[in-house]
Amino acid sequence: MSALLESYAGGSWFRASDEGKPLLDASTGEEVARISATGLDLSAMVEHARTVGGPAIRALTFHQRASILKAVAKHLGEDKDPLYALSAHTGATLRDSQVDIDGGIGTVFSYASKGTRELPNDTVILDGATEQLGRTGVFLGQHVWTSRPGVAVQINAFNFPVWGMLEKLAPAFLAGLPTIVKPASQTAYLTELVVRRIIDSGLMPEGSLQLLCGSPEGLLDQLGAQDSVAFTGSASTGATLRQHPSVLHGGVQLGVEADSLNCSILGPDVTPEDPEFDLYVKGVVAEMTVKAGQKCTAIRRTIVPAAIADEVIAAISARLAKVTVGNPANPDVRMGALASLAQRDEVRKAVQILRSSAEIVYGDPDRVDVVDADAEAGAFMSPILLRATAGAGEPHDVEAFGPVSTVITYDSVDDAIALAARGQGSLAGSLVTHDPTVARAITLGLAPWHGRILVLDRDAAPESTGHGSPLPMLVHGGPGRAGGGEELGGIRGVLHHMQRTAIQASPDMLTAITGQWIKGSEQRIDDVHPFRKSLAELRIGDTIRSASRTVTLDDIGHFAEFTGDTFYAHTDPEAAAANPLFGGIVAHGYLVVSLAAGLFVDPDPGPVLANFGVDNLRFLTPVKADDTIDVTLTVKQITPRNSAYYGEVRWDAVVANAEGQPVATYDVLTLVAKTWPPTAH
Amino acid sequence: MSALLESYAGGSWFRASDEGKPLLDASTGEEVARISATGLDLSAMVEHARTVGGPAIRALTFHQRASILKAVAKHLGEDKDPLYALSAHTGATLRDSQVDIDGGIGTVFSYASKGTRELPNDTVILDGATEQLGRTGVFLGQHVWTSRPGVAVQINAFNFPVWGMLEKLAPAFLAGLPTIVKPASQTAYLTELVVRRIIDSGLMPEGSLQLLCGSPEGLLDQLGAQDSVAFTGSASTGATLRQHPSVLHGGVQLGVEADSLNCSILGPDVTPEDPEFDLYVKGVVAEMTVKAGQKCTAIRRTIVPAAIADEVIAAISARLAKVTVGNPANPDVRMGALASLAQRDEVRKAVQILRSSAEIVYGDPDRVDVVDADAEAGAFMSPILLRATAGAGEPHDVEAFGPVSTVITYDSVDDAIALAARGQGSLAGSLVTHDPTVARAITLGLAPWHGRILVLDRDAAPESTGHGSPLPMLVHGGPGRAGGGEELGGIRGVLHHMQRTAIQASPDMLTAITGQWIKGSEQRIDDVHPFRKSLAELRIGDTIRSASRTVTLDDIGHFAEFTGDTFYAHTDPEAAAANPLFGGIVAHGYLVVSLAAGLFVDPDPGPVLANFGVDNLRFLTPVKADDTIDVTLTVKQITPRNSAYYGEVRWDAVVANAEGQPVATYDVLTLVAKTWPPTAH
Repeated sequence: MSALLESYAGGSWFRASDEGKPLLDASTGEEVARISATGLDLSAMVEHARTVGGPAIRALTFHQRASILKAVAKHLGEDKDPLYALSAHTGATLRDSQVDIDGGIGTVFSYASKGTRELPNDTVILDGATEQLGRTGVFLGQHVWTSRPGVAVQINAFNFPVWGMLEKLAPAFLAGLPTIVKPASQTAYLTELVVRRIIDSGLMPEGSLQLLCGSPEGLLDQLGAQDSVAFTGSASTGATLRQHPSVLHGGVQLGVEADSLNCSILGPDVTPEDPEFDLYVKGVVAEMTVKAGQKCTAIRRTIVPAAIADEVIAAISARLAKVTVGNPANPDVRMGALASLAQRDEVRKAVQILRSSAEIVYGDPDRVDVVDADAEAGAFMSPILLRATAGAGEPHDVEAFGPVSTVITYDSVDDAIALAARGQGSLAGSLVTHDPTVARAITLGLAPWHGRILVLDRDAAPESTGHGSPLPMLVHGGPGRAGGGEELGGIRGVLHHMQRTAIQASPDMLTAITGQWIKGSEQRIDDVHPFRKSLAELRIGDTIRSASRTVTLDDIGHFAEFTGDTFYAHTDPEAAAANPLFGGIVAHGYLVVSLAAGLFVDPDPGPVLANFGVDNLRFLTPVKADDTIDVTLTVKQITPRNSAYYGEVRWDAVVANAEGQPVATYDVLTLVAKTWPPTAH
Repeated sequence: MSALLESYAGGSWFRASDEGKPLLDASTGEEVARISATGLDLSAMVEHARTVGGPAIRALTFHQRASILKAVAKHLGEDKDPLYALSAHTGATLRDSQVDIDGGIGTVFSYASKGTRELPNDTVILDGATEQLGRTGVFLGQHVWTSRPGVAVQINAFNFPVWGMLEKLAPAFLAGLPTIVKPASQTAYLTELVVRRIIDSGLMPEGSLQLLCGSPEGLLDQLGAQDSVAFTGSASTGATLRQHPSVLHGGVQLGVEADSLNCSILGPDVTPEDPEFDLYVKGVVAEMTVKAGQKCTAIRRTIVPAAIADEVIAAISARLAKVTVGNPANPDVRMGALASLAQRDEVRKAVQILRSSAEIVYGDPDRVDVVDADAEAGAFMSPILLRATAGAGEPHDVEAFGPVSTVITYDSVDDAIALAARGQGSLAGSLVTHDPTVARAITLGLAPWHGRILVLDRDAAPESTGHGSPLPMLVHGGPGRAGGGEELGGIRGVLHHMQRTAIQASPDMLTAITGQWIKGSEQRIDDVHPFRKSLAELRIGDTIRSASRTVTLDDIGHFAEFTGDTFYAHTDPEAAAANPLFGGIVAHGYLVVSLAAGLFVDPDPGPVLANFGVDNLRFLTPVKADDTIDVTLTVKQITPRNSAYYGEVRWDAVVANAEGQPVATYDVLTLVAKTWPPTAH
């Protein structure tokens, strides 16, 4: 008897009290492992996540969480061979395994990087601009994102035991949520090994990751309004989860990624001589055969111009004929086995239904030649291409979750869009065209039905990641049949795990609550110029109020001559007077901000290392000759970098004229040393 | 018999074939109107919205839709007296009616303004930055928001017959969706009048607004994956809608705003002598009595420090004693009737349940003195204040949807947060404190449980809009019991109606699809300087490639002297060499962009009227003495203003050195005339 998979629960590995159900190798039918959660206390798992894991994660800033993710990704990437070896039992070729394992690790790296670059080194995220809610500005609104004191339950599909877990874990962890992973039984042995690696590394705070190998019966009953369930799998299971009392009445947030009938459209502009024709054929064959077509993003509907359908079918068939099927561990094999014999039965049944309105033009669902394998013992299947009859309904409705696709023909661009929409919402669609007009029409027609659309042509091809690959920086999910959820998409995927709240308060209170200086709140001026303060000394609200300077007509004329910016508003009194926005000679905007820098800067070497940028510069009131300006600079946000001797300081800058009117407002971005002199480079 | 309300369906007013159900005046019990939808073809209404209304709205840009909203708001605001008069039948005082009617009109104005200022004058919205997906940049990702070809069904509550409709209609219309409004029967006569006004005005495209007066039975069966239902009402009806097959299996997007047990916390720092004490008392009384407490945001839980509870109760009671109840049309009356006798029965029942763990400290649910009204005929009720016993559960769970609130006491900040959380998610919470530390601790503790939080103190009070008022620019909705939905929040509320899609393509294709110039796509240089082109001539991708200029040490020294920006990196060779980021004298960033302007500007009067700002300026590579720079400026986005003779043009600017490295990148924002010379000022 093979090993019984363990669950990681409440800080230790749990072994079920019974022998468990056997999990079989997809290609050989031999037992790989056993699985059971009998005796596991799910309520205690949820409690452990809430009371131990959650608080531990939320004590860390986003940057600290990102650092941990980076370390986890590095750790997993150090020894991948045992993972590939185990992955082969799922029916996956090495290439398939790389999609799952390397894809998963890459996703964690991506989140580590995004978390550091795009989130504050803090625990609260500001959302959008401050809204002034009254006339004088003593009452403001500011949206913030905060972490939920809950738990993220992740129910994954069998087809990506590593990526499926990591793509959900990374954004949830960044968001401050502890995770309970429930992998699909069929391939749970691979998930278990990855979780074991992570737990053994000690990199993640205890309680932030738990693993449930076996039945999740009763788990949802434990969940409430601060908890979420992210489910990947069939639409029917998704609908069952939607009816759970915790979801209907308890406020549990349910995200569903369901298999969908994704389409790929060949543009009407493409002829067999165009490189796009080959790109299309390669794309369809890749999506049919990678992971033996067991991808929720695979192309199920191959939508092509009627006039060219025969050529497309011939080309796809020719390419499919080269696909060797068999032992996934054999490097000569291009396509491995389906996940199980039961899964193959499901696919055969679906093909049978499809045949009611489509004919098979390539392959035999009941027969396939295999390499280096026992065709009887393994869940092998030939790629199957069908061609739909005119007006067929089944190809838009029946998903064969295997190496199966159906060719559907169209007559016009509108027809193609209407056919795509008959899928009722998909995770991913693609369009192969080299015509920008076609690209715009079809892409905008498909967009409301899709979470992601690939537009492929000869220009994009060298770097295209293909129709079926979700990327961590792009949203994964889709409307309608695809479940209506959204995962990944960079920080978007993190925010889905957080709560957005509108806070209404005085500026001072908003500053205290958010940890960022909000316009209108206290500005602190002391004897030390803030440019002389390191991050150890600098505080939100520290302010410079500069001396003033009169901008003379000579200054403007000189600046025009020196820079070459002789725009008439700065040089030609009559023409400037005729411009209704100026009504006379005005100073260059760039002159104003240059002089402002001259007014606020502290020249000697010090903790302010560099000005690396300016954001949201707006010129609000023209500066005319002999107007006097001054500038007020206030520390708005401080972002120490965990891996450097400096951090970023964002300053609010307001240049005002003698009447106190703001003439220019902007954010100045600087790098400031953590200590001065710096303790280390 | 009173008038039968009509539905507006398929382009004409529909009158039911039966007599309908009577709707009674809240204060007098007299019949106001009758309601029935018998014989109405709901399927035809949905089809009309999809085929007539939707396409008509989506043919307009966001700015055009915003202009229509502005005109609608103006039109409704022109003659409000008939609306107030009808509103009085609902039991509303004039002040209550203003919250509903003026609040609704103000929300439409707000969306008109936001739509113009914050959305492009186009039909596609870009979401976030372009993501480079490969090494060389030939394959990019860009998220976009597009309009769904569906219909927005809005099922509203009885308490805000005008605001409830307009706050859902405005964002849906901006998003490109036609609306079918289904008001609660009890107060549908007021909604009907407002819809009639809008339809009669002819301002909105036919099909963009339909009205269903009567039963919506069967309406959801007509809906699919591109349609949405926005429901405001009870949590139990919300749960019923969640189980509808169109939601479970059909992909209908359901948003729920449910009544919640909102709390208001008095900070531990506040004494009866502080102005915050009065603010708290006034706030609680206002929320209990405005709309007779029939607001989903009203304060149901009054959470106060145990030590001060007696004083709070005494002060609230004293203030409640001054609240006159009676005929809402009488200006001396402060609180009108509940919406119906049935509604009053519900509230009395809820109070009875609350009494199992709370004692009444003010008011009698069965007795009230009324002014200018028949106490028997109308649904009048006294304000009721309860005080919960220690550990009471009911006040966190039972909602009395009337002038009822329960005082609950706490001992510590953590205790207060825990009590608030027992409401399991609320639309709105508030905190009255003048202590920033308390404000941060409690607000961040409450945030995951709330859609909106008011932090009130003496500073914010002069402009505070109060605990219970949703504002169009702030999100309205809340997690858990509050339904998990989000409405309003400015453009956030528009985007909830749209589909976000990740598009992967070459830069040229992305430019063609989005209508905005994407970095890496074609830059078109012709004989005419783009500054000489009006909006009528200017095209996305039009480019200036400037001559080059060498930046000398003299230039840098001169600029330092002229502007006063003598930062050591520009003036002190030794100190500059010691800075690891520079390694020697470098040009000021402001010098670089000033010289760049000198290189790209076309000096003579022309269609480019002004440079009004700069976005996302980043200094990427230091410019050292004798480095040569040039600048490339490309038209990135064109936003004609509907109500002006000019529009905004956003230019992509890249300053590069002789090696072709970018030294500075930014967006230049200009105002450009639609024609040149302009045809009108």
